Amino acid sequence: MHLEELGEFGFIEIIARLVGKPSAPVVVGIGDDAAVLKLAADEHLLVTTDAFVEGVHFHRQWLAPGQIGARAACAALSDIAAMGGRPIAVLVSVGLPPSSETMAAEQLMAGLVEILGKYGAALAGGDTAASPAGIFLDVVIIGTAREPWLRSGAQPGDILMVTGSFGEAVAALSLLQTGQISAASGLPKALRTRFINPIPRLAVVEALGPRDAVTAAIDISDGLVQDAGHLARRSGVALTLEVARVPIAPLCAQTAEQLDEDPVQWALTSGEEYELLLAVSPHLAEQVAKLVAQKAGTTLTPIGYVSEGEGVTVLDESGEPLEVTAGGWNHFSQERQ
Amino acid sequence: MHLEELGEFGFIEIIARLVGKPSAPVVVGIGDDAAVLKLAADEHLLVTTDAFVEGVHFHRQWLAPGQIGARAACAALSDIAAMGGRPIAVLVSVGLPPSSETMAAEQLMAGLVEILGKYGAALAGGDTAASPAGIFLDVVIIGTAREPWLRSGAQPGDILMVTGSFGEAVAALSLLQTGQISAASGLPKALRTRFINPIPRLAVVEALGPRDAVTAAIDISDGLVQDAGHLARRSGVALTLEVARVPIAPLCAQTAEQLDEDPVQWALTSGEEYELLLAVSPHLAEQVAKLVAQKAGTTLTPIGYVSEGEGVTVLDESGEPLEVTAGGWNHFSQERQ
Repeated sequence: MHLEELGEFGFIEIIARLVGKPSAPVVVGIGDDAAVLKLAADEHLLVTTDAFVEGVHFHRQWLAPGQIGARAACAALSDIAAMGGRPIAVLVSVGLPPSSETMAAEQLMAGLVEILGKYGAALAGGDTAASPAGIFLDVVIIGTAREPWLRSGAQPGDILMVTGSFGEAVAALSLLQTGQISAASGLPKALRTRFINPIPRLAVVEALGPRDAVTAAIDISDGLVQDAGHLARRSGVALTLEVARVPIAPLCAQTAEQLDEDPVQWALTSGEEYELLLAVSPHLAEQVAKLVAQKAGTTLTPIGYVSEGEGVTVLDESGEPLEVTAGGWNHFSQERQ
Repeated sequence: MHLEELGEFGFIEIIARLVGKPSAPVVVGIGDDAAVLKLAADEHLLVTTDAFVEGVHFHRQWLAPGQIGARAACAALSDIAAMGGRPIAVLVSVGLPPSSETMAAEQLMAGLVEILGKYGAALAGGDTAASPAGIFLDVVIIGTAREPWLRSGAQPGDILMVTGSFGEAVAALSLLQTGQISAASGLPKALRTRFINPIPRLAVVEALGPRDAVTAAIDISDGLVQDAGHLARRSGVALTLEVARVPIAPLCAQTAEQLDEDPVQWALTSGEEYELLLAVSPHLAEQVAKLVAQKAGTTLTPIGYVSEGEGVTVLDESGEPLEVTAGGWNHFSQERQ
């Protein structure tokens, strides 16, 4: 069957069945004019939207429908992690060509709902629309945080730390672009995971709890250096990154060699990594890294520091400023700069 | 200039400038990983998303960019009115072709921001993306309500009431489709307003305050009979509508005659009217209508009643069941049914 036969309301029923009955803090879920939530009084509300457009954020030849939904959910949840928050509910607007297979549309939503469930965020509503050309998703995540981690709080003297390792996202993309591997499922395991199910670092938030060690945070969606630039600008500080300390993922190094690329440039500019860049009070850095290793099972690596001034300086292994050749992702220019 | 030269971050700066500094309840607006809000403790949170897709929800030959933004904002706000809520903040994901004129993109956002300001809802964030084909907007409205008006609360014995009058939306669309009028600006005034700046009935909510007179509510986006069906199903009741009491807009009647259409069928099935259908406790109906007339300057007309059973029955002027020929809007089938 195709969506044009099933119709909008049939499709919404399928989604409602995937989701099941709402539970607190969702009071009213799918099926009314808006979702209704009841929150605890002392928390800040976080709201973020993430658009995923076919041909821009994903390609159907590389990802199965369920994988598209999963990837969109992971990426959107990452913004809540970057705010030091906990996701509580999700709305999604989905645009689908009327000629879409109902089965594929259901798999798309099931992939999304499965990831949301894994991270404790229920689908509570959204919108469905015909799309004349290609699929799009807009994923709205509602979260809460006692004290949100903003981009704007970094202080001179703070240590810059990152979760996990870098460069797998661009390695995965580059392998797919060569055409040697025809779909994301065929990628080596670590690259496949990063490409389809990148980990929103919510466990890191959980591990740190409502501590004031983190002074600023951002997730790496545009590229490490470019996102560091966003944080520097919002905080009104200068950031220095030491290349020798940036954890480069083994499969980034290996794939870069294979394709005759520079793994360091890749790690510095790879978008859609969804690792966190944190500014941390210097006397708490060691303790915070230990907590994250123990409770979130993730490394938290110091890669530089905050000082007075502006902009981002990257130092090479001998401490000299390094030119970063590719700037990261910028929409509308539609390519890595 | 075009967006591909301006770039994503330049466009976001333009939007941030249009919006200005955030104020309560928005703590952090545009420029971080999520918007941050701080709400009063005793209120329910409402969240709704509305997708607007070029070629489906709007056509660029009929609407100027600022009008597209305005229309999207009005329609999205209507869902908060339908919940008996007050809008407090908005996020918007916007997809634009990279070849878009910067000026047009700015006008689109300015049209949206202006309407939001008019109804007291600040733009607090969102996402921007390249779109390979056509414009899309996803408007996320965050609202609050002490006691939300759900679709599910209608009780046998309640009176069905509607705000305003019906049929202007389909009249406007039909005139544009004839090609005799080439853009919405050329429509007669009432049709133009309904088509570009339909009124989200937030003043009706304000007029009624936290009263328990309204037992259920929905806004008319798919068509009066179809939306009545949604309300009947969610409430587990039967609805009876009396055609003779449905307020038909003068320009609906006039345009229908001109185009040899049936104004009654138009009024019953016209989507995107954004009037409210309310179920009201019978002993309060008269009082509620008076309050709305005085405080919101809008009529609230009784058009039928709720009883035990299911489905929607429409009675003609002699009290006989009337066949409704067009069912209203259904996405994916892409046409009025």
